[in-house]
Amino acid sequence: MLDKGVTESLAQNIVATQWHDVPPQARHQAKRSLINFFAVTLAGCRSSPIEIALGLLGQFSGSRQASVIGRRERLDAASAAFINAACANVDDFCDTHLATVIHPTAPVAAALLAFAELRPVSGADLLLALILGNEVQARIGLAISPSHYNRGWHITSTCGVFGAAVGCGKLALLSERQMVWALGIATTQSAGLCECLGTPAKSVSVGNAARNGLLSTLLAEKGFDGPAEPLAGVQGFYHALAEKPDLSRLADGWGESWEIMATSYKPYPCGFVIHPVLDCVLDWRRENPKAGVTHVVVRGNPLLSLRADRPKISTGRESQVSVQHAVAAALVCGKAGLEQFTDSCVREPEVLKLRSKVEVLRDENFSTIAAAVEITTADGRTHKLTQTAARGSDVNPLSDRELEDKLRAAAAAWNSRYDVAPLIDAIWGIEERSDVSGLLSLAVPA
Amino acid sequence: MLDKGVTESLAQNIVATQWHDVPPQARHQAKRSLINFFAVTLAGCRSSPIEIALGLLGQFSGSRQASVIGRRERLDAASAAFINAACANVDDFCDTHLATVIHPTAPVAAALLAFAELRPVSGADLLLALILGNEVQARIGLAISPSHYNRGWHITSTCGVFGAAVGCGKLALLSERQMVWALGIATTQSAGLCECLGTPAKSVSVGNAARNGLLSTLLAEKGFDGPAEPLAGVQGFYHALAEKPDLSRLADGWGESWEIMATSYKPYPCGFVIHPVLDCVLDWRRENPKAGVTHVVVRGNPLLSLRADRPKISTGRESQVSVQHAVAAALVCGKAGLEQFTDSCVREPEVLKLRSKVEVLRDENFSTIAAAVEITTADGRTHKLTQTAARGSDVNPLSDRELEDKLRAAAAAWNSRYDVAPLIDAIWGIEERSDVSGLLSLAVPA
Repeated sequence: MLDKGVTESLAQNIVATQWHDVPPQARHQAKRSLINFFAVTLAGCRSSPIEIALGLLGQFSGSRQASVIGRRERLDAASAAFINAACANVDDFCDTHLATVIHPTAPVAAALLAFAELRPVSGADLLLALILGNEVQARIGLAISPSHYNRGWHITSTCGVFGAAVGCGKLALLSERQMVWALGIATTQSAGLCECLGTPAKSVSVGNAARNGLLSTLLAEKGFDGPAEPLAGVQGFYHALAEKPDLSRLADGWGESWEIMATSYKPYPCGFVIHPVLDCVLDWRRENPKAGVTHVVVRGNPLLSLRADRPKISTGRESQVSVQHAVAAALVCGKAGLEQFTDSCVREPEVLKLRSKVEVLRDENFSTIAAAVEITTADGRTHKLTQTAARGSDVNPLSDRELEDKLRAAAAAWNSRYDVAPLIDAIWGIEERSDVSGLLSLAVPA
Repeated sequence: MLDKGVTESLAQNIVATQWHDVPPQARHQAKRSLINFFAVTLAGCRSSPIEIALGLLGQFSGSRQASVIGRRERLDAASAAFINAACANVDDFCDTHLATVIHPTAPVAAALLAFAELRPVSGADLLLALILGNEVQARIGLAISPSHYNRGWHITSTCGVFGAAVGCGKLALLSERQMVWALGIATTQSAGLCECLGTPAKSVSVGNAARNGLLSTLLAEKGFDGPAEPLAGVQGFYHALAEKPDLSRLADGWGESWEIMATSYKPYPCGFVIHPVLDCVLDWRRENPKAGVTHVVVRGNPLLSLRADRPKISTGRESQVSVQHAVAAALVCGKAGLEQFTDSCVREPEVLKLRSKVEVLRDENFSTIAAAVEITTADGRTHKLTQTAARGSDVNPLSDRELEDKLRAAAAAWNSRYDVAPLIDAIWGIEERSDVSGLLSLAVPA
């Protein structure tokens, strides 16, 4: 734990990496992450926890310098970072870095877009900051995966604050020394617990990751300093929040491959571990729309049971982490969109009845993106289905068009006359922009 | 870790406890804590980290509803809670609950006073909220002491958020259910690392504890919910942030004794573990003002070495956690006040020279409030001194008059014409007030 200069080396890499170091496929993936970010933020921006948080922060917020995606309200930049990150993650619909289970874009993009309303930021700079924020939070998380998450840490929040700080630090052109300070100020704000998953409280730590990452950078920029070795110091982040971190993950292969390439984008608004199960169930349901189901056995990675074995739920929010609900709703409705994870769908008598017939088994032979499902029908037959790589995962990716459709669907659910074509065009063409703040005005329906 | 209802039981106790349940000596101690809080906040409110943070938050802050102690600037209540807590703790001068090493009043009082500028709060309600916030954060911390702090957690911050949430929750008259939610929202914001001690970054987590505790309550009040068992749940606070918590500490003897009675108030603005050493050195220096010192050996609890064995320092902030500096400055200046822990005192050639002559030995036989010092003088003689209970500790307390003097000295250092007599009178008579917000106007020099 006494490795000298772990944080300094990381800061050095961050500061040294420039736009021309990033290959075209990573740049393109960053745009895909932005398309997905706006889709999930528009999907989440009217949920009740967001209404409450927005109402509260609005009472404290000052100059209305920054946009809330999908909403007319404006907030100060720090509060906007909080709300936009919370919106992006509130429905469990945002992107996933499966090796760490970090939802990478919510905290980083929310912080960067808020920064871009404080000072002009070019499209290329925004993409680079997003890629680097993503890279650093993934690497900090990889060094402690899976033990950190398994212990109960909500890794999107605990590592997201670093991604937000680093991304904003890149936009602010922090020096190496300032970047170490920003990382230090971020370490002491790293928080978030999985116990809160399935409740509105989850969104607080995700919002804080964006807000506090942004503030870490703005403080460091003004000379507000921190410790020399906040990550690997004897009383620092890795000592307190991790068991046996593999610190080589912070630096090894830097610039050779890019963690953003390992991003998965969700077709369904629920925990990713549930996705391969839904692929199986929805495929089968398409072929068997009328069959009466009497029993379902789901087999998956232990994380599926750990996170999503929740037969008894009472709210839409809980349903996002209930495999029983997801299966039942998909069988009843033939789809698994936003409306299948609402309070009213949870209370639907047919769904309720079917939830109790879904059994979950853990099997270490399955990866987190694989599952097997056995569906028994009223005629006594059993139908066996398997998915080896969930749709939307990095090895079975959604197409650009499917991501656009996800954004279009989220916008249409908001307001059927809200045309997001200009927003989509602006994202694909973002490198041409000298100031990206215009994107945000396209993300608020007229 | 599956204890059912740990958080619910705690919430029940909090909600049930009323003003008449609190004995007179605890009420009086709460006033002493307020006197000390205003003293240390006035002492800290002009330090450079506070200037930076205040300037930054001021750019984001909205309606200027709340006071910043000692300053003309006004902020929204959430930002004021942050700044006042940070000010109180920035100089390492605030009170200490020695069994946990929590500095209890900074996060709680800052949050409560901000709340009191949002809605009218009576003096008795404020004292009760302070006593209960203090009680809960101490109990949550006692359950995991000393392992939590030893692992690197800045326990004032990690537990302070609970104290602030509970105190504000008491003022907001939260129901038991809402109190569980407030505690849940607080769990997922519990953060802060000891690696940041001795740097401005430390103040960020203390400020957050107050701000986020306040916001936890205001969210819970609006129905923003959280998990049923945030403290003892399998992915909750104790599982992630502790080893083998003793959960009985949360409830045992509730209402029979009061943790606020175990508060120590510092005569010197530096880590409490350094205090018994300073008692020895200053006593000896008074008798030997002219003696040339050639060597000093300090013997104390292992925490003294762990936290304060820092022979090489370069800033006033670091000096607050350097026993070498404290000894050297006390020997050179004959006192250990705010001016002995400044950048200029750190650079003083005579102090610098003497620092290198101070040796620190760890000895498990000493409590954290005891120390022995051997001073060798130029004539070859060795002077042996011991302190068994540091001045200001709960077993050797500062008098009410000494606490008033501390407040008067802090105010005088700010502005020699600033008369704090009305503030002192208002605190001793706080039970008579139906609205305590007037206190804050007395805490800003004209």
